[in-house]
Parts: sequence; structure tokens; C-alpha cells
Amino acid sequence: MSCIFCRVASRAVDSLIVYEDEQTLAFLDHRPLFPGHCLLIPRTHYETLSDLPPAQIEPLFSAAQRLARAVETGMRADGSFVAINNRVSQSVPHLHIHVVPRRRKDGLRGFFWPRIPYASQEVAIAAQQAIVSALGVELGA
Amino acid sequence: MSCIFCRVASRAVDSLIVYEDEQTLAFLDHRPLFPGHCLLIPRTHYETLSDLPPAQIEPLFSAAQRLARAVETGMRADGSFVAINNRVSQSVPHLHIHVVPRRRKDGLRGFFWPRIPYASQEVAIAAQQAIVSALGVELGA
Repeated sequence: MSCIFCRVASRAVDSLIVYEDEQTLAFLDHRPLFPGHCLLIPRTHYETLSDLPPAQIEPLFSAAQRLARAVETGMRADGSFVAINNRVSQSVPHLHIHVVPRRRKDGLRGFFWPRIPYASQEVAIAAQQAIVSALGVELGA
Repeated sequence: MSCIFCRVASRAVDSLIVYEDEQTLAFLDHRPLFPGHCLLIPRTHYETLSDLPPAQIEPLFSAAQRLARAVETGMRADGSFVAINNRVSQSVPHLHIHVVPRRRKDGLRGFFWPRIPYASQEVAIAAQQAIVSALGVELGA
């Protein structure tokens, strides 16, 4: 069991656990963006959100919702940031949801990066079509 | 109906829609972090993740999973970033999930900000206890 988050889930590695149920576990990130920053994981090893089986969606994201509320309340925050990095910027290849307390003027950028309009409507439509095409027939409007 | 995302959902405002089902709708953000950046919303107006009714968790996050896969495939990305801002940094107070294509060395920071270890184990345990306490008895380990 080489995955560090699998070892956290099995208690082979110590962590500051804030929540657990049959299918999920949450613990403090040891290098938080802000204090109270938690990581929520499925106990079973799935690498990314795409790999999560359909039956695991509800348990994991219900726990995320409850954890977001608790992080906001417990840390007396104004809001929260809930995020998943899939592959890129994903330091541990075991699906994890960041739940981070946020405060107004806490120094994090509005949405953390310059955001630039599409150069033209044609460029935007090309992106739209690429995604629609990838969704395939099962997801047509 | 003053909410811009409610107006997108009702087609009162034009948008480049990439996905829709009975309960959700996804469209291109007009000021993307990267081209192909989508916003997924529940059709019904809920302000934050906390406000989403239990029965809506599975439909919304199943759609998020499918959309993340499609954004990765359609935009030929290496991965994706899936994120929710609750209240702070939330420009429109209608729950929306950002689904953003990511590429290696795309310029976005590892996880976008300096991350600093807790000053001491005691400080970390205080954060843990605050969150555990906020979760309340229903969520005890």
C-alpha cells in the first residue's frame, strides 16, 4: 500500500482526522492554504474524479457538503472553497477534495488568475463544440 | 428573475451551452481561466453548496464528473480543475461548479498560493477540534 492517502485511511499514517464514515475520511492538510484546510477522500483508492464509480458520487459529495458547512462554522469563516485537481496540480494520485475556509480580503485572488475573454465568438464556439462532441450522444440537450 | 444564471437557465440570456439535463445546465464561462472553462449550475436557484438539497447532490455531481471528462477529452487537456467558491470569490450568488481544462506547465501555480505548515501541532489540533465540533454528533467518527 504505497499510496499515502490509503495509509491515512487505514491509520497506518497519523493524521488529524475531522470526519469519517463508511466510505469517506477527511483530515487536515498539513500545509494548509489557510488553517482548517481539509482534504476529503474516498476510502477506496480512485485516482481522479473521472474514476469514481457512480455509486460513490452521492456519499462523497454529501460528505463534502457537510464538511464545507463545518469548516465555515468551525473556523468562523465567511465562506469556503471546495476544489479538486485532476492529474495536473494533483500532488497525491488518490482523489481528494480540498475544503478551505475563506474570509473576505483573505488575500486569495478573486478567482486566482487573470481571466481573459475569448478572442472571438468563433473561438468560443469552437471550444463549446469540442466539449459537446466529447460528451457524446448520451448527454445531448 | 434578477439572477443572471437563472436567466441563463431559462434561456432569457444567451450563453454557449455545452450540457443540460432536467436538473442541471453547463455553459462556457465568458471570461475563462483557460478556453473550455465551463460553469455547471443547478437549474433551481441555490446560493451555495450548503444550500443544495440532499436529493440534488447526486444529479449535480454526476453531471460534474461527466463534464470534467468531456472538458479533458474535448479540449485535449492533461487534467482538470473542478471548484466551487462559496460566498467569498463567488461572483454570482447561484451555486456554480467551475470545470477548467488544465495542462502541465499551463502557468497556474501548483495549488495557486503559498501554503504554510501549521506553526505547531497545538495550532493544528485546535483547527481540527473546531471543525469536529462544528460537525456535531451526527458526524462523529
